[in-house]
Order: sequence, then structure tokens, then C-alpha cells
Amino acid sequence: MNIPQTSFPRVVIIGGGFGGVALAKKLAKQEMQVVLLDKHNYHTFQPLLYQVSTGGLEPDSIAYPIRKILSKYPNFYFRLAHVDAVDSATNTIQTDIGPLKYDYLVLATGSSTNFFGNKEIEANSMIMKTVPEALNLRSLILENFEEALLTDSLDRQDALMNFVIVGAGPTGVELAGALAEIKKGILPKDYPDLDTRRAQINIVQSGDSILKGMSAKASEKAEDYLEDLGVHVWKNTRVTSYDGDLVTTNTDLTFNTATLIWAAGVKGETIKGIDAKDCITFSNRFKVNEFNKVEGYENIFAIGDVACMTSEEYPQGHPMVAQVAIQQGKHLGENLVSFLESKNQMVPFQYKDKGTMATVGRNKAVVDMPNYKFQGMFAWFVWMFVHLFFLIGFRNRVVVFTNWVYNYIRFDREARLIIRPYKKYKNTLVSSPKNTAEDVTG
Amino acid sequence: MNIPQTSFPRVVIIGGGFGGVALAKKLAKQEMQVVLLDKHNYHTFQPLLYQVSTGGLEPDSIAYPIRKILSKYPNFYFRLAHVDAVDSATNTIQTDIGPLKYDYLVLATGSSTNFFGNKEIEANSMIMKTVPEALNLRSLILENFEEALLTDSLDRQDALMNFVIVGAGPTGVELAGALAEIKKGILPKDYPDLDTRRAQINIVQSGDSILKGMSAKASEKAEDYLEDLGVHVWKNTRVTSYDGDLVTTNTDLTFNTATLIWAAGVKGETIKGIDAKDCITFSNRFKVNEFNKVEGYENIFAIGDVACMTSEEYPQGHPMVAQVAIQQGKHLGENLVSFLESKNQMVPFQYKDKGTMATVGRNKAVVDMPNYKFQGMFAWFVWMFVHLFFLIGFRNRVVVFTNWVYNYIRFDREARLIIRPYKKYKNTLVSSPKNTAEDVTG
Repeated sequence: MNIPQTSFPRVVIIGGGFGGVALAKKLAKQEMQVVLLDKHNYHTFQPLLYQVSTGGLEPDSIAYPIRKILSKYPNFYFRLAHVDAVDSATNTIQTDIGPLKYDYLVLATGSSTNFFGNKEIEANSMIMKTVPEALNLRSLILENFEEALLTDSLDRQDALMNFVIVGAGPTGVELAGALAEIKKGILPKDYPDLDTRRAQINIVQSGDSILKGMSAKASEKAEDYLEDLGVHVWKNTRVTSYDGDLVTTNTDLTFNTATLIWAAGVKGETIKGIDAKDCITFSNRFKVNEFNKVEGYENIFAIGDVACMTSEEYPQGHPMVAQVAIQQGKHLGENLVSFLESKNQMVPFQYKDKGTMATVGRNKAVVDMPNYKFQGMFAWFVWMFVHLFFLIGFRNRVVVFTNWVYNYIRFDREARLIIRPYKKYKNTLVSSPKNTAEDVTG
Repeated sequence: MNIPQTSFPRVVIIGGGFGGVALAKKLAKQEMQVVLLDKHNYHTFQPLLYQVSTGGLEPDSIAYPIRKILSKYPNFYFRLAHVDAVDSATNTIQTDIGPLKYDYLVLATGSSTNFFGNKEIEANSMIMKTVPEALNLRSLILENFEEALLTDSLDRQDALMNFVIVGAGPTGVELAGALAEIKKGILPKDYPDLDTRRAQINIVQSGDSILKGMSAKASEKAEDYLEDLGVHVWKNTRVTSYDGDLVTTNTDLTFNTATLIWAAGVKGETIKGIDAKDCITFSNRFKVNEFNKVEGYENIFAIGDVACMTSEEYPQGHPMVAQVAIQQGKHLGENLVSFLESKNQMVPFQYKDKGTMATVGRNKAVVDMPNYKFQGMFAWFVWMFVHLFFLIGFRNRVVVFTNWVYNYIRFDREARLIIRPYKKYKNTLVSSPKNTAEDVTG
């Protein structure tokens, strides 16, 4: 991997998400060599992916080159790589660009979509954890309406215009709200020759409230907002199968739909070689102690979604959200610096819950802060400014803000572009390597 | 295709580029039914594609949804379709979404890259005529540097960091300048552990001057600018083969490179069924008369790059540039309206050459206006404002302007993201339809 050996200890971080980047920033100015590996060359601001899927933001303004975040630090190395396995006996990781020795290893691999073992749903549903996945969803939504125009079958039209979102966490709720606003504000203008009033947005939730983990007030208000926008909210319902056409549930409820969006759960993105029997726990996360050290290992740490640090307050580990990852990244950074440079004892991690928020649409958001809960227009402004604040990069902030102001004033979302068609390629058997690359060009 | 039959004559326009959109805008408010077909759901502002390839602009800010451009007009229909052939005997076109009758047909299909029959170069080189192609090039450039980091072979490193651009028209020159600025301003920061001074940008031109068609002064000045930026300009040289590694030319000159960008020519994107023997002429364009009517047909017109209207001043037809397409689109629109509504004689088309411009880099541009030629910083400002003016959409203008201001002040280009890896998929044999869509997700 061509990384020079120096006298500094080498800390290898796998994953450039919120946790990995926060950690790298703490370490890179110290007397240690920091190697960050990610399968993308950019950091993704996942909380805004749903706005990419729904044409409200350009994909590139919520992504930021990892090299640029850390270009000031001479001891920092980035490599674009997929990590296959860890060999803890020899302190080596195996990657698609070769092996790498580490002195300290930090797993910041985040999470992936959890289908709870249902292969059929996995094969037929859309997910939204990466920029390309969000773009695929954007393409599919638009392709559905283009296709709906072409058919005389009302059933098929309805299926194409029926969106079923599974999971009413922030992602599901925000996506449902955005789709409802598109139905109201954009579809009638873009598709005047289609009866888009028949478009349906359904959100299905296994529990008896939406936005589980937020306050009862926030949950109720968000549900009101969704219903105001015409979203059908189905609670106490579990989706059991989806073959690409028909969604069945554990009740009598079924849906005919061309689009199922699965936002019902995530699981830790664990890695081969870290012994699962000893330390993999709830939601497929590595069990860590209060210093984020993976149980059973001396020099391997885990932070963020993939780490499970249990305590009295969090018996199943912390929530799998950006705030935890950022705080654990910073905290582990400080611990490692203090330990490596002064041999100090590490300090236990304490999560400071700064609150949770979700937006449903224009002027409609819910915010739970530790001592203060509010909803509506002010919550919506708070939501926007908090997200702008946490976005990386001044240019990204300006571009996102510009888009939001424009979308707000004009009731519009202009990034409704099918840059890489999704359906076409899903249904096409590609026969040669040359075609693969060519077809991808759209 | 589910387009209602009305008493209005139906004008079918194939292609939503500069010409097709200008024409549709003129027609759509009149008493006629306008159907525009395009294989993308967006209009592409091609003159700025090179900035997408080089990370200076986000792809979505130079594309604009066609439905939105024309959403005000009730007699306007858009369909996302690929046109396979024209059957002029029955006034019908065949498309991948079914046949469509027309009363008047306008071919505004533009142009595609011309490899002059060299299949090997076509298979191994990069092109830049669409947004996905520009994004593929962006990915490849970045993937090259990531790969260069990993190899110990200096030859392979040099090949990965050597860019060969064939064709010194505006596209080639602008791309060469942008790559040179990246080499200078970004590579040393992003790849401190790589000797990026060894990166080379070569531009190869068959004629004895660059920017053919512009004034001698502009051409010389642009060449000076390129050389100032460290670009190697090779004139009187024709590339004869490229196998993916070695470029040979008609002289002793050869290049070892992983990236050949072909910007050496375009050809009209003609269409099956319009009899080639009668009317296809220079550069594979349809021969049209002074009213843009395709020779040999009564109700078929062609505008823009795919049309060849010869005159004393333009014995080989007009240049294949946006201005001609826009002017022909508007003019044909006026002619059709006047002819269909008042049975007036059509007015011959007269091209008003408003000038040509090209930018090489920061404060470096050349502008030829009919009576005034200038170069340098003022030309560069003029180039920017003209391009902003012709961009469609207020939001796009603001976002592009924001990016330019940021890039200018910071000497930066932040959209250096590998969203969909190119190399990886070019080299992978995709085995199942499921994988196709999945792999595309990166």
C-alpha cells in the first residue's frame, strides 16, 4: 500500500464517516501516523440523502473529498480501499489494495441496511445509505412517472405512482414528507397529462408510533404533519414480503407498488476476522468497553454505528446516529493522544445527548432537546441551521443553502434528473465488460 | 405513446438540446401540438461539461429538466424515448416506447463523437458529450491518481498521470487548461506522497494551429496560455492508434498513458429511415435548404449540428456550435408558426455569428467577436458571464456562479468525487441483471 514506515505509531481507521473523520482530525496533528481507508473518496452527509433522492439537492453538495478534509496534516494518509478482513494475530488488515500493518486499529465502518434476513425484499427494494443509492432512487421515482404516462392500464399506473416506505424513523418520515410535497407541488406541473392525484405515499411502521426514540409529542405532531400532507401512515404493521409488485404485511393490508423503499433498520457493518462469538452483539455491532476498545482485543477500537457500548442508561448501546459517532470519534482521539503521548489513563466515554430532530416538510419539523421540545416553523429553521452547521465545507453550505432558499421560495426541486437510469439497467443483462462501462454512461 | 389526437397539427421534435428547446419554446404557445422526445429527461449545457469532468462544477447544475422548461405550455408533450427510425411514407417515427405519427418532424438530434472509423480508439478512449460521460471522466482521472499511489513502477505511475487530449478545439483546450490547473493547485495538496510534478498534460492537434476557426491572434494567445500552464501542445500530429496503454501518431511521437480523451471531432447524429444517399453530406449531416427543410422531404426539417445548410459563406455548412442550433431553432419556430397559421412564405435562415470564445484557465480566455477581438482577464470575465447568461434556470446560474467565485478565491475544485467508479466497472464482467443495478450503485 506504499505507506512509509516511520517511528510514529500507526493508527489505521477504517471508514470515513462521521466517526472516522472526527477521530482522524484529532489524531493527525499529533506524533502518530494516521491511515484512513474508505471505499469512497468522499465523506457522505447521510442525513440529507433523502433530499438527493427527491431532487431537492445536488448529490455533490452533500459529499466532501476526504483528502481535502485532512490535507493540512502531514502524517495523514488516505487510501481508497475495501477492507476484507483483520488478522489480529499479526496486527494486519487485508484489503483489495494489499495488506497493511497497524499498531492501533479503529473500526468506524458504520452500518448498512438491515433486511432481517429477508432476501426477497432485499432483492426488490430500494435503499438509501450512499450517494449512488440515493441517485438510483431519484432515477427510479422519475422513471416511474415517465412509464406511468405510457401505459393504458390504470392498475399499472397506480402501482407506478404508489410509494411504500417501510420504517418510520427520521429517514422514512423525511422521505415520505418530501414525496408528498413533490406530489402536491411538482407532479401536476410536470405531468399535466397524468392524473397524479392518484399518486400515493404510504409509510409502514411495525411499532405503534412513528419516530421511535423521540418524545410522544414529537411523534404525534410528525404524524399529524404527514397526514396533513396526505401521507398514509400505517402503524403496528410489518411488511412480510415484496416480489417487485405486491407488498404483503402481517395484517390484511397489501400494496401494489413498483417501489418499496426499505428504511426499517440498520445493522453494524462488521468485518471478518474480529471474532464474532465473543463480541458481536445487538444489531450486529462490536461490543466495546467504555474506552471504545473492542472486547477481547488490546489495540482494536470501534466507534459509531458499529460499536455497542452498553451502560445502565443505554442497555442496548447508544443510538446509531451521527452525534454518537462524532462524539466517540473525538473522545477516542483525545484518549489515544493522551495515552500514546503521556501514557495517561484513558477517560470513559460519556454520551451527551444534544437532542433529536426530524423534518417532515416546509415549516414542519419536530425537535426534542434535552430540556426543550418544540415543533413547527421554528423547529424547521433549527433543523436547517443545525444541518448546515454540520455539513462539511463552506462551498457545500452555500450551495445547499442556496438550493433551500430557492426551493422554499419557488416550491420547487430542480434536480429532478435521470442522470443514470436505474430501471433500464436493472432489467438489462449486460454482456461484455465494454458494455458495462458504456451502459453506465446512460 | 398516449398522446391525444387534437385538431392542431402535430410537430414532433427529436432532441432537447439547444436547437430543440429553442424551437419548442417558439411553437408551444401556438395552435399546434408540440411533442419533444429526448433520451434524457434533461437539457445538457454541453459547453460546461469539461468543468464537471474536472471537479469544478456539480453535474446537476449544468443540466435542467426539460419538463420544467416547457411546463407552462398546455400543448406541449415531452416523452423520454429513444427514436429508432423514421418512416416518411407513413409520417411515423418508431421509438422504444412505440410509434408516433407526425405532421411535421424536426430532427434536432445533435452530434456524437467522431472517431473517423477507428474502432480501437473508440473502445479505449474517453469522451465527454453527456453528463454521465463527463462524470466517468471525472471518476477516471481521480481513480488514476489513487492507483498511482499504489504502484512502485515509475512507468505505470507516469502512464497514470499522463493525460493525452486529442483535438484542440474549445473542448480540448478548456479541458487541458483545467487539468493543468488541477496539477498545479490541487494535486500537491491531495497527493503529498506522490510526485505529481511528473503529471503531464498533452494536447495533440492534426492542424498547424489550435482553436481552428478562431482568429490567428486568439489561437496564438491560447497556445501561449496553455504553455504557461505547462501543457504540451503537439501540432501537425495525428493520433493513429491507442490500445489502452500506448498512443501512436503519424510522427515519431508516442505516449504511454492510461487516459486518452478524444475531442477530435463530431458527426451528425443521423437517424435511420431518412435516405442517406440523397441528403447526408459532410460530417454525416442532413443536407437542408435555407428553410432547414431536409432535401427530398416536404415535412421533415433538421436544425443544429445534424443539419448542413450550405451557402457561399459556409460551403460546408455552419459550424456545429450552440449558437447555430439556437438561431435555427428560433428561426424555424417563427417560420413554422407563420406558415401554419397564416400560410405565409418561409423566410430563409441567416446565421448571425456573434463570435467565438474559449477559456484556458484563471484570467486566461480568448474572445473573437465580429469586430473586436480580445484576450486575457477581461475575455475571461466575458466568457463567464456569457456562459452564465445562456445557462437555463435561475438556480443553476446562482449555483454555478457560487462555485466559480469559490473556486477563484480558493484556487480549488471541490467536486472531486468518485461517485460511480469507472475503471472498476470497465474491468468487471457483470454477470446478472441484479448485479448490474447493484454494481452501478458503487
